Formats: sequence, structure tokens, C-alpha cells
Amino acid sequence: MEINQYNLTDAVKDSFKAKDDARFTLLLETMLDHLHDFVRETSLTHEEWMGILNFLYDCGKISTPERHEFILLSDVLGLSALVDMINTRGGATEGSNLGPFYLDNAPVKALGAHIADDRPGATVLCMGQVRDTLGHPLPGAVVDTWQADGAGTYPIQEEGQDKYDLRAKFTCDDEGRYFYTTVLPMPYTVPYDGPVGKLLRAGDRHAWRAAHLHYIVGAPRMRPITTEVFFANTDYLDNDAVFGVRDSLIGKVVRIKRGEELGVEVEKQPDAKLAFDFVLAPA
Amino acid sequence: MEINQYNLTDAVKDSFKAKDDARFTLLLETMLDHLHDFVRETSLTHEEWMGILNFLYDCGKISTPERHEFILLSDVLGLSALVDMINTRGGATEGSNLGPFYLDNAPVKALGAHIADDRPGATVLCMGQVRDTLGHPLPGAVVDTWQADGAGTYPIQEEGQDKYDLRAKFTCDDEGRYFYTTVLPMPYTVPYDGPVGKLLRAGDRHAWRAAHLHYIVGAPRMRPITTEVFFANTDYLDNDAVFGVRDSLIGKVVRIKRGEELGVEVEKQPDAKLAFDFVLAPA
Repeated sequence: MEINQYNLTDAVKDSFKAKDDARFTLLLETMLDHLHDFVRETSLTHEEWMGILNFLYDCGKISTPERHEFILLSDVLGLSALVDMINTRGGATEGSNLGPFYLDNAPVKALGAHIADDRPGATVLCMGQVRDTLGHPLPGAVVDTWQADGAGTYPIQEEGQDKYDLRAKFTCDDEGRYFYTTVLPMPYTVPYDGPVGKLLRAGDRHAWRAAHLHYIVGAPRMRPITTEVFFANTDYLDNDAVFGVRDSLIGKVVRIKRGEELGVEVEKQPDAKLAFDFVLAPA
Repeated sequence: MEINQYNLTDAVKDSFKAKDDARFTLLLETMLDHLHDFVRETSLTHEEWMGILNFLYDCGKISTPERHEFILLSDVLGLSALVDMINTRGGATEGSNLGPFYLDNAPVKALGAHIADDRPGATVLCMGQVRDTLGHPLPGAVVDTWQADGAGTYPIQEEGQDKYDLRAKFTCDDEGRYFYTTVLPMPYTVPYDGPVGKLLRAGDRHAWRAAHLHYIVGAPRMRPITTEVFFANTDYLDNDAVFGVRDSLIGKVVRIKRGEELGVEVEKQPDAKLAFDFVLAPA
């Protein structure tokens, strides 16, 4: 059979013969349908297609183990957010961007610790409870957090800084509660000195992220969640560069009044507090 | 408005504000529709999405100016072939893969030249006419050709070889005719030591290309074509790794009988001949 622009898609599918992996086949064939339809629907020219392939080439060239330009591309195109959304379980806290700065070996710290050394920024008490979808506390849940400082910088981004600063793993108490103090992070831009930055400029888009705290929260027999907590009445909540904000993930930073009872023991007296509970679905 | 998995695609489209470039906007928005639908339709997991992003990262890492893994990926997924097909003009010779080995400064040679030095393989007389879609010859048309040798190797692939061997640009005579001798190329594999090779193996696919001659043919005021000429009754015509074969691009290699009149003056006596005419549409 002669191939033409209509039956070519099936011919390419048929060329992949290892059909015993049904999931691989589904992903591959669905991707082929969409990419081929993209070409047909747009009557793509050779120059345009080479432009796209060279864009991917440039993304590869600027990438390093510390800078994954394809993840950044996925982020600014809303693909990472979409994967987060469709993988959120009913009743559980919504997922949001992992981002590029996660380290899986954050220092284990005791509840009440201050995790920001002497970094600039307001000291905020972060506290809350980890529960299951029926409302039961999850004692022993682990809260893994990392964040930028009050200048919008992750220590890992700057030579000579302690990359484990502003990172910690906490084990919740008998009531599933976590609490610690840190500095309130500020907004920052995603890297825009590469091909993805060019794409943002071509589309007259900014590179700012709304200020946020990163969390991975897990507990035995529960499905871990990767998410972010944002702050009410701060910038870029409506136009976060990577579409990470969800209404349900916006917490409120409240001033702590003089002499106010905190209800928990902390290493450093905070200026404000942010209460945010996490809900996990069964694994 | 809160974004969710259904309205996110429009939110991402709206984030690109430079709408004055209608073509950029169309390509971007069509691509966003397809990529987002791919995620929704497959209920893609985080692990699968990271697998795809890391595959692209790996393609970037192995790429060099001489090896563009994203073009190779486009080739084996039939995307290059599809772009060739939809850009073929009615009545003109069908387009086919440019491939990775083109050099735009091939040596200009006289009609009748032998372009294969002492390379192994049968000597074949390649000849034909370049015409417009109404059948009029195009005197002065330029035929730019490059190919592998009788062992399936492009000189550019091997250290110490003359990379301009097996390449030539010919200007057609007053009747739009071209003729030269070369060695009959043999099949070869696309590079399969990288991420694309892994994909081929995962799909139980081979990496062989049907033997072919590459051509770019142009003439004043005509639309140039990039194409390939294949040979009847040779291997991989039905399962070329990059989907380059079209029925209309398969020529016939015919033995030259002892004492047979060639009709053209050539530098080296050929063993066989291949007649193939090219048709160009107006620019």
C-alpha cells in the first residue's frame, strides 16, 4: 500500500511492533495522532517545522542536570500544571509544580525549628495538620518543604550558599500537626535567558512566579502529594508564569499580635503565621 | 476565574499576548490544544511525563551540529515525511527527506562527470529531464545530489574521507537534461546508538533505510523540491525507517547491454542506467 498524508499516521503506528506493552502503545499512538494532526491542521511548512526542531535542539543545548529546560517549557505551557491537576485525587489537597529546585535529602529537623538562618524577610510560623480524606489526623506524616527567601532566591541558585538552607523534613506529632518558622518567600522569575525565555518574550509574557512554599507531604499507606502554598493578596496569583496557583492552595498570612498565644513551641518568635492543612488520599 | 483541567488550555493561550503574529498564534494554540489533549486523553502520570521530558533532555545531550537527534526523531515518527507530503505541489515531483547529510556547497561538476572516485559499487548512469508541470523542459535547472556509497556510507560520516565526494551540482543542458555516473548506493541504518535508537528498540523496529539518491532540484521562477529516488526491487521499500519512499519516487535500474548507445557523453562507462525525470511547479 502506498503511504499518503492520510494513511501515514497508521503506517507509523504499525511500524511499532511491540504491542504487548499496552500503555506504551497507547501513549505512543495518542502522541502520534496529535503530532500528525498538528502538522495537517496547520499545513506546516518545512521552515516552521525546522524552527520547532531547532527550538528543541536549543533547549537541549542549554540544559544541565541543574537546569532542565524541557521541564521549564512544560511548566510555561501549562503541561506540568495539567499533569498535576489530572493526578489530584478527589478530597485530597490539590497538586502543584514540583519545580526545578527540589533535593530529596533535605535535613530532618525537629518541630518548631527555624529553617531560614539569618535570611532577610518576615519570620512566619507555618503550621497545620495532615489528615486523611475522612478527616482523621495522620500522626507520623512527613512534611518535606523547600522555598525561596525574602529576596526571591533559592540558596541552591547562588554559589557559596548552603543549599540545604530553607529546606527541612518534619515528622508530624501525634495529632498529625507540623509547625516551624521560616522567612516569608518573595516572588521570583523562572530562568528566561534561554529558548523558553525567547518564547515568553515572543508571546509578550512575563516570567514571574507568585510567591510560594513548596511541599511534598506523605504518610504510610497514603498517596503522597507534591504541592505549593501561596499567600492571599500577593502578586501574580492571577498570572503565575507556570500556572501553579489554585484557589484551594492560597493561605492567609496573619499578623501575630503582641503577647498572642502561639499554641506551639518554636525556636524563634514569629511576626506572622500561616495555617495550612494537608489532606492525603489512600495510596 | 479559577483554572481547572478543562479551562487551563484557554488560560495558557490567553497568557500569550502578542496576537499580531497570526501564524505564530495559530501554531502555538494548535500545538497547545494537541499537547493538552494528549495529557487529558491518556490520564498521563507524573512518572510518564517526566519520562517524556527526560527523553527530550537525552536527545538534546547527544545532539551536535552534525547530529540533530530531534530531526531523527521527527524522521522515525513520520513527521518529516508528513511535512514533505503536505508541501508537495500538485503535478510536481513528490518531496522526501532532506536527511542529516546535506551540504549546501557541493562541487559544481560538468554533465557526464563521474562523482564517485574509486568507491566500491556498480557504476550507474543517472539521467533525466527537469520539466515544469505543463511538460516544458527547464534549461538551466540545477540538480544538486548527494548519496551514500556502495557500502551504505556517506563520506562525511568517516574521518579522513573527502566529504565532498559523492556530491555534485549540475546545470541542465538546453533540453533540461542532466546526466552523470556514480556508484549505486546501498541501504544503511539511521543512527540508533542514542535515545531515538532506544525508542526504535522499544517498538521492535529496525533502523534501515531503503537505498536512495538525494536530490534538490531548482530552476528560476520554480519552486525547488527536495526529494529522494529509490530503486525498484530493493530492500526496505515497504518499511523504510523514516517513511521516505513514495511509489512515484521509485526508479528502475536497468543493465546496459554491450555496445548499447547511451545517447550522452560520460566520463566513465556505466554498468547500468537509471532514468528519472523531475517536475517543478511554479514558485
